[in-house]
Amino acid sequence: MKYTLKKISEKFDVDFIGDEEYEINQVSSFENASKNSVVFFSDKKFLNSLKETKSEVVITTRELSKLCKKNVILTKDPHLLFAKISKLFNKREIINYAIHNSVYSQTDNLNKKILLEPNVVIGKNVILGDDVHIGANSYVGDNVKIGSNVFIYPNVTIYKDIFIGNNVIIHSGTVIGSDGFGYANENNIWVKVPQTGSVRIGHDVEIGSNTSIDRGTLNDTVIGNGVKIDNQIQIAHNVHIGDNTAIAGCVGIAGSAIIGKNCTIGGGAGIQGHIKICDNTQITGMTKVSCDIKKPGVYSSGTPLMPNNQWLKNAVRFKQLNKLFLKNKKSKTE
Amino acid sequence: MKYTLKKISEKFDVDFIGDEEYEINQVSSFENASKNSVVFFSDKKFLNSLKETKSEVVITTRELSKLCKKNVILTKDPHLLFAKISKLFNKREIINYAIHNSVYSQTDNLNKKILLEPNVVIGKNVILGDDVHIGANSYVGDNVKIGSNVFIYPNVTIYKDIFIGNNVIIHSGTVIGSDGFGYANENNIWVKVPQTGSVRIGHDVEIGSNTSIDRGTLNDTVIGNGVKIDNQIQIAHNVHIGDNTAIAGCVGIAGSAIIGKNCTIGGGAGIQGHIKICDNTQITGMTKVSCDIKKPGVYSSGTPLMPNNQWLKNAVRFKQLNKLFLKNKKSKTE
Amino acid sequence: MKYTLKKISEKFDVDFIGDEEYEINQVSSFENASKNSVVFFSDKKFLNSLKETKSEVVITTRELSKLCKKNVILTKDPHLLFAKISKLFNKREIINYAIHNSVYSQTDNLNKKILLEPNVVIGKNVILGDDVHIGANSYVGDNVKIGSNVFIYPNVTIYKDIFIGNNVIIHSGTVIGSDGFGYANENNIWVKVPQTGSVRIGHDVEIGSNTSIDRGTLNDTVIGNGVKIDNQIQIAHNVHIGDNTAIAGCVGIAGSAIIGKNCTIGGGAGIQGHIKICDNTQITGMTKVSCDIKKPGVYSSGTPLMPNNQWLKNAVRFKQLNKLFLKNKKSKTE
Repeated sequence: MKYTLKKISEKFDVDFIGDEEYEINQVSSFENASKNSVVFFSDKKFLNSLKETKSEVVITTRELSKLCKKNVILTKDPHLLFAKISKLFNKREIINYAIHNSVYSQTDNLNKKILLEPNVVIGKNVILGDDVHIGANSYVGDNVKIGSNVFIYPNVTIYKDIFIGNNVIIHSGTVIGSDGFGYANENNIWVKVPQTGSVRIGHDVEIGSNTSIDRGTLNDTVIGNGVKIDNQIQIAHNVHIGDNTAIAGCVGIAGSAIIGKNCTIGGGAGIQGHIKICDNTQITGMTKVSCDIKKPGVYSSGTPLMPNNQWLKNAVRFKQLNKLFLKNKKSKTE
Repeated sequence: MKYTLKKISEKFDVDFIGDEEYEINQVSSFENASKNSVVFFSDKKFLNSLKETKSEVVITTRELSKLCKKNVILTKDPHLLFAKISKLFNKREIINYAIHNSVYSQTDNLNKKILLEPNVVIGKNVILGDDVHIGANSYVGDNVKIGSNVFIYPNVTIYKDIFIGNNVIIHSGTVIGSDGFGYANENNIWVKVPQTGSVRIGHDVEIGSNTSIDRGTLNDTVIGNGVKIDNQIQIAHNVHIGDNTAIAGCVGIAGSAIIGKNCTIGGGAGIQGHIKICDNTQITGMTKVSCDIKKPGVYSSGTPLMPNNQWLKNAVRFKQLNKLFLKNKKSKTE
Repeated sequence: MKYTLKKISEKFDVDFIGDEEYEINQVSSFENASKNSVVFFSDKKFLNSLKETKSEVVITTRELSKLCKKNVILTKDPHLLFAKISKLFNKREIINYAIHNSVYSQTDNLNKKILLEPNVVIGKNVILGDDVHIGANSYVGDNVKIGSNVFIYPNVTIYKDIFIGNNVIIHSGTVIGSDGFGYANENNIWVKVPQTGSVRIGHDVEIGSNTSIDRGTLNDTVIGNGVKIDNQIQIAHNVHIGDNTAIAGCVGIAGSAIIGKNCTIGGGAGIQGHIKICDNTQITGMTKVSCDIKKPGVYSSGTPLMPNNQWLKNAVRFKQLNKLFLKNKKSKTE
């Protein structure tokens, strides 16, 4: 597959500088580029890499284009255009409809426009849309409904009664619909609260590997449209995640937390149960969110990295912080 | 299935107000309730929800019952009674004993009162109690002994030599018995210490999805009776967890930590290796436990959530905290 | 299997005190030892255990040997020698070459010196070295190349195009090669950046259970030789981990982070994206690394454990820390 600079320019409605017949055949990093693979340049700190790359086509901004020698594709957001051009060259393989003979399905009349790899197990009353691809050794429970154009990688587990929209990708090891962590306590004995809700996953959602999304206790756990969820994430019962929110790896979201639209949650952050976070909130990595966020913005917690011997001295002072404040107040008033 | 208020009152030995013949047929949230589904009301902040619900039967305390209009079931702990009534209406499906023909077992004389779903693989000398249900694509290694009434969901992995008690639930993606992270170091090369211990899991334990419990190095990793373990948890080699302790999602417990009975450990907390935590300890979310806890109570670490621009200013001051204390001390003595 | 003290002494070139014909048949903890199982003693705090053990052979240092009564094996690093002697008695089972008839492989000419357990699924053009053992229900994608003497436990997922070296162990539930979390944003909609890189795993690597290692976006994610990775770890796209670095459970490493050689990263730590950490760095548990580390040493962040009521008072003061500093400065200059 090849595109000339001119075709790219037309296809994405962007300007370019250079040879309109110059051909691009792939996207690349600076290091691995060939003459005809396109790279993107969005930060001056990569100037050395730009100078050394074999690529002769660069996606960049008008401002940074002065630093580029050869063919340049101009755009306000080089990373975005790079993503789009990469998609052009790296399309998902065309699905070959087939149900492997080792598949065990308790639903007889499955859609024929699907691909089920070896050892997939399908429960009763399952509805699969067109172009659903389920990887080897994955499990889909009773009454699950999956939209069209959904790619489920191997070794995924989807419990019963789950709803999944269109254009969803679920990576390996992920579990959708396990029981929420709900117990009442009677004289130290934990009494399990049946988890009878479900999980509803919207359209255009991607879920990384080894992530867990629990079913709701009575109502459903809800993942909005366009939500992107990374690896190793815990989403507890009755959580709601608003449209187009992105959640990085290792985040834990406790029960009944409500997260708004267009939020980004940094890796390793923790969201307390029953918390509400408004739209357009950004949480930095490893932050603990223990109260509602009512105003869009960037939020953080934690302490900065230090050499351990310094950290020890400061950390022990943290324990005396309130006393220091009280003493200061007192000395002021003395 | 239906129960009259009178029957519920007799069954659970609780008082009620209202029509003794009023029928309940399910538990529900306020939002999704029908006339005959019972809701619970334990906090005034849900008063609006109570007013709007279609439910005409409420589980609540005597004190809060004044706020309820229709039929009321009285109890000191509404959530607990709700859990019990929910269990009445949401019993686990009756197990249909069967071993799917795709199951591969190296143990010939398996108990017949079990359900093994497709592609389950069973090692040598495995002993399964009555009413063991193992989900599709799960693996049980050699010499594993599992008690009765145990539900193992799909895609679970149980290594060899593991002991699991009665009434245990293990959710998908969970791994029991992987090697502990044990190495000696010789000139920067890590020399693996063979992990020859096992894992012993007591009775009435529930383990969430995608959790890991490592086998012991020489002795066993031990999970007490009644312990509840959420999703995405790491339990390292030789950890002991006391009876009825509950551990929320994303917790990491390092090697040889000893955790007492009736503890609750909040989501994302980390327990350092070789630490001892006494009975009845409560650890709040994302706390780092780096020393023994000898007195029951609630323990925490970390810093509160702030807008990022404020956080940056305070965080940098944390690095100067010890200096500030020393300066203050000095100025006092001057 | 038995070894006399003399043989052990010759085999590992170490001195001993006691009966040269005394036989050892296993390693053990103090508690579970028999007369002929060897224990190690490297810290006086275990003196009581040493006194009570049934073992009559102790690995220890010359200094601590005075505290031992019976047969003693002398070494500078008792834990290391213990690991080596344990390996002698606890060798991995000899591999019985076999491909179970339920295995589905799209590669016809697989090496015969391998063991594939039931329901393993192998893609096209896969190359497996000698003595590769793949556990039940694991998946290996197209074009994967695995070296020799590799043990992959059940329910592992290896995506396409991955390279794995020799003498590698991968525990259950682990996923290698899932897509990196890469998106560009266009008017709040996330546009997926195709993840066309791969993962290269060196020799002598061990990876714990339920860990995720993402493929690179354009270049590869690289795990060096001798690296040890625990359970529940997230390694994002384009991360590089230097030789012989050890990473404890629940660590998250964000995209493009470069970690040096011979580092140890404590449990629950988080490494920000695009960070560089130099060789021989030690990160303590739950530390957030948000800037480059250019000097070897021990690094930390976080605050110490406190009773919750004290913590609350100090934590709220953290919010006022900058103001306190400014006030102090002012009062100094007044």
